Amino acid sequence: MTITARYADPAATLHVTSETVTLQLAHRSVRRFTPRPVTDDELAALVAAAQSASTSSNLQAWSVVAVRDPQRKDRLAALAGNQRFISEAPLFLIWIADLSRAHRLADGAGAGRVPEGTDYLESTILGFVDAALAAQNAVVAAESLGLGTVFVGAVRNHPEQIAAELGLPPHAAAAFGLAVGTPDPAEHAGIKPRLPQAAVLHHERYDAATADAHIPAYDERLGAYNARHGLPGSWSERVLARLAGPQSLSGRHRLREALANLGLPSR
Amino acid sequence: MTITARYADPAATLHVTSETVTLQLAHRSVRRFTPRPVTDDELAALVAAAQSASTSSNLQAWSVVAVRDPQRKDRLAALAGNQRFISEAPLFLIWIADLSRAHRLADGAGAGRVPEGTDYLESTILGFVDAALAAQNAVVAAESLGLGTVFVGAVRNHPEQIAAELGLPPHAAAAFGLAVGTPDPAEHAGIKPRLPQAAVLHHERYDAATADAHIPAYDERLGAYNARHGLPGSWSERVLARLAGPQSLSGRHRLREALANLGLPSR
Repeated sequence: MTITARYADPAATLHVTSETVTLQLAHRSVRRFTPRPVTDDELAALVAAAQSASTSSNLQAWSVVAVRDPQRKDRLAALAGNQRFISEAPLFLIWIADLSRAHRLADGAGAGRVPEGTDYLESTILGFVDAALAAQNAVVAAESLGLGTVFVGAVRNHPEQIAAELGLPPHAAAAFGLAVGTPDPAEHAGIKPRLPQAAVLHHERYDAATADAHIPAYDERLGAYNARHGLPGSWSERVLARLAGPQSLSGRHRLREALANLGLPSR
Repeated sequence: MTITARYADPAATLHVTSETVTLQLAHRSVRRFTPRPVTDDELAALVAAAQSASTSSNLQAWSVVAVRDPQRKDRLAALAGNQRFISEAPLFLIWIADLSRAHRLADGAGAGRVPEGTDYLESTILGFVDAALAAQNAVVAAESLGLGTVFVGAVRNHPEQIAAELGLPPHAAAAFGLAVGTPDPAEHAGIKPRLPQAAVLHHERYDAATADAHIPAYDERLGAYNARHGLPGSWSERVLARLAGPQSLSGRHRLREALANLGLPSR
């Protein structure tokens, strides 16, 4: 049962489910792909699903760049933490927080209507959230078609260089990448166990003490899972290392400056 | 066919699809609900789907507060644009960009390990993106169970007051709300047409001229759809009005200050 794997808890159970929920529970990040290309028809289904997600005020403040060219994938991989699977995936989608369209609409509508609202952190976040809602729908659609995916936050390591590589206009920035392809059956990637529901779900008001009481059991379960996959350390230790300070953010401590350089001052 | 409704284009078609993609294409925002409660079993399925979404470095930097108390829903509705459906929905989920857990882990691990990485805009955005990936999975799960939803960005209108109402700890903020319930069949909400795929999907590099050439046709299609639903103006006009400047952001022009007050300085 995927629900017991999802929580690494033999007692975990769901009393209500659906074919789609079962598909979602089985999600895993795929980092090894067969050489089979992702077809244009498959890509069209992913983008149609992505566009069907909600978007704030119907602004549709995102775009997606589909990269298949091997040299471009190599260059993007070099900018995004040298992760080999970016080159090896037949399709690399870069999801763009895109406030640029509004500026071009303003240009078309004549002078004096510059959309200054895009200068604010609210608009930057709106673009990232719109892109995330869309991309998650694409992930679920991909898995329903037998494809596998993995998100790549490392496109935020060097935002200006990624923007130059993709020819992004001002007021747009790469939010994250998504490698897509047919899963290599030799990979044997597992379903990553998550925190118990009681650690993330609160009723009426946030109750930190009740929620956090479930973390030690999770540290034990994820530690056992990680050890089987050759990863050291408990979840708590890995969280603290990942968020230790600017030096642990892989260059992303300067994201605000980079976004400002790209026309998203986020003030 | 939902694909033709999604693009308000009788020529739109998909050559590859699945039961899940068909469900996703049929997404619509639901703002009228029957009085039937959302059960704890249904909520558990939504949260399990949400937790199955990807999360950056497995940080799981989000939480969700499930509100059913009528008085609390009324107070939240008053803080979030006085939208009646918040009170009327049997369940209102508030998704939290949550970097607070890392700070509590640090407290437990002893002094000297304060996770200063949460001070950066990168971490704020990571929390919002993690919350969005999770929430979108919950939306798809909900629809697969016959429930309907609508996102509420207006919880960002008054972030400090929302945090106080929910008892959020420092380093956490409401990203967006999600009203959930059984759709009232009397609502007749339609599938909102989106931009043509060619307006948002780029190949290899961003090509603004080619993409934007599809906007006038969309303005016409959405104008016709909006007119049928009593909304004035073309898409372009509504985008420019929504992003005109600080005065058009419903108080969210001060989001950065509000997040800083909540322990997410976003520098």
